[in-house]
Amino acid sequence: METRVHNFNPGPAALPLPVLKTVQAELLNFQGTGMSILEISHRSSAFIKVVDDTVAKVKRLMKLPENMHVIFLQGGASLQFAMVPMNLLKAGEYADYINTGTWSTNAIKEAKILTPNIRVIASSEDREFRYIPKDIRLNADAAYVYLTSNNTIKGTQWSSFPNTGGIPLVADMSSDILSRPFDPAPFGLIFAGAQKNLGPAGVTLVIVRKDMLERIPATLPKIFSYKTHVDQNSSYNTPPCFAIYVVQLFLKWLEEEVGGVEPMARVNDQKAALLYGLMDRTDFYRPTADKDSRSKMNVTFRLRTEDLEKKFLAEAKAAGLEGLPGHRSVGGCRASIYNAVPMESVKALADFMEKFARANG
Amino acid sequence: METRVHNFNPGPAALPLPVLKTVQAELLNFQGTGMSILEISHRSSAFIKVVDDTVAKVKRLMKLPENMHVIFLQGGASLQFAMVPMNLLKAGEYADYINTGTWSTNAIKEAKILTPNIRVIASSEDREFRYIPKDIRLNADAAYVYLTSNNTIKGTQWSSFPNTGGIPLVADMSSDILSRPFDPAPFGLIFAGAQKNLGPAGVTLVIVRKDMLERIPATLPKIFSYKTHVDQNSSYNTPPCFAIYVVQLFLKWLEEEVGGVEPMARVNDQKAALLYGLMDRTDFYRPTADKDSRSKMNVTFRLRTEDLEKKFLAEAKAAGLEGLPGHRSVGGCRASIYNAVPMESVKALADFMEKFARANG
Repeated sequence: METRVHNFNPGPAALPLPVLKTVQAELLNFQGTGMSILEISHRSSAFIKVVDDTVAKVKRLMKLPENMHVIFLQGGASLQFAMVPMNLLKAGEYADYINTGTWSTNAIKEAKILTPNIRVIASSEDREFRYIPKDIRLNADAAYVYLTSNNTIKGTQWSSFPNTGGIPLVADMSSDILSRPFDPAPFGLIFAGAQKNLGPAGVTLVIVRKDMLERIPATLPKIFSYKTHVDQNSSYNTPPCFAIYVVQLFLKWLEEEVGGVEPMARVNDQKAALLYGLMDRTDFYRPTADKDSRSKMNVTFRLRTEDLEKKFLAEAKAAGLEGLPGHRSVGGCRASIYNAVPMESVKALADFMEKFARANG
Repeated sequence: METRVHNFNPGPAALPLPVLKTVQAELLNFQGTGMSILEISHRSSAFIKVVDDTVAKVKRLMKLPENMHVIFLQGGASLQFAMVPMNLLKAGEYADYINTGTWSTNAIKEAKILTPNIRVIASSEDREFRYIPKDIRLNADAAYVYLTSNNTIKGTQWSSFPNTGGIPLVADMSSDILSRPFDPAPFGLIFAGAQKNLGPAGVTLVIVRKDMLERIPATLPKIFSYKTHVDQNSSYNTPPCFAIYVVQLFLKWLEEEVGGVEPMARVNDQKAALLYGLMDRTDFYRPTADKDSRSKMNVTFRLRTEDLEKKFLAEAKAAGLEGLPGHRSVGGCRASIYNAVPMESVKALADFMEKFARANG
């Protein structure tokens, strides 16, 4: 094995090395079955145990109340952009969306193809999505209020969630799920593509509150109904078995090695503080998000000039620091420091940034 | 590593051992990237090469004409049951379905939720789906004719496809894709969950003819449109990277080790002939499908009594022959002998069956 790099990819992203080593060790023979996890039946007791244990781990780690179901779907967050209104919005009802960047913009666009009854009640588009809106005017008649908890591309994050006074929140938490504790009670539905904070691409965690299932129209094809997947314990059809298994190992690592979500959040705070602290001490690096809206998952920043950014990115890559270019739609630089990115990698990046600033300041 | 079993699972199913060994060997460091295939970006050149190469291999192996696109989706065949009519059926048009078992029944049910304009033009339901219908009355006004090429549960398979006189065929080939050569030209769309004949669960191969894309309604959410995924080369959103990579390795094995689809079909013929031949020589084992409709992928059979079946299945499992129970909806026995099940495993099963018949005849 050649040396592994420091991985700051925005997703698919770094996984804990012990998780990868377990996958590797048992790839030809999963727990004495004589078959690979890639070859066992989704109806086998060995695999049903994987699903049940992964669900139990999510419930425990997130301290979910009894009335919340945990399911694993395919199709990524982008499929949820359509499934959410298809399931939760009855004819004649309205849904309210908060637009904080590319992914909420896409969710709004997809929902609007399905129904005109989509209202954007707050947006930070006026300043290129550099902040999380504070002034949110709720409508009492909304079926749900939709938001993106962390904005991967713009580098912003909700530090706390708006009080909707009982209207169910629906959140795309793809890029900060399980990175910090929060109260799940106000949420009717939470979804997260696994490939940033809890596993590989190919599986989406969906958490849906029991009362939301009563909203689902009978005219919805079965495959799109959350109820179908709840009733069949994520095995209505063949689930993405391998991806769920890697999520199980990831959550085991989070629970047993890290110690749970609270200790994880402390580490994530430290990682983010190291990078933002360094940048705030000079004006060599310029964070793109407003200070009170900064993401602890995706640290986005610019340098003085695009040429200097190019030099920074090239030298970083040569130094074994991978995945630092900003999203192709915005340019600049971005360090994604999800759960599985170790402090050691963030320190290596901070060291590199200090040296680069001294050499080019 | 403990001994691996002979794997006759119906899906997820056996994979070629060299494929599993390659996955294992490069799991911590994919082709010198310093990252796992589970950790690299779907926008990286390393991963784009995986997609492009996998598409090229499918086109080469299946000898697809220039006007056919190859894409990789999530959601399994069950998502296609909905996506097919959503994409290919315009308002006021009719689609014709042929019902040959559980999966076509499900496809018909899902389509009928979306539109009443679904006609069942042939069915073998009258005799528990033991045969492939011969008497098919086509309607000249059908937008497409839908069939399931191989019926995993009932153990039947189309030996050749009906001549629809220009009406596009749409086929669920989940359980016999790449197991034998056929002319793809009459097909408007072919789909296959990977987990039987070409890889692990979590990715669906879709082959769609260019003219089909013109049928797609503008009111379809983007995520459901085949055109979206064709235009974005299967990376509209994060694809199931790992599953596509395993499909790539599977197809490399099929192309380079087996020698292509024709040699694969010869091996598959021999495997099926060994089991059916053995059963036809006595009446100890009773194939459930009509002789002219037998599947070369799923060999379904019964024994004299259910007690004897139980004994057979228990002793087979103890002898390292896995996955032989019939589908829970029909009972009995089933040997799934997909592409990756080696002749050696089929011989081991045949030997066991001979011995068991002698001991219990």
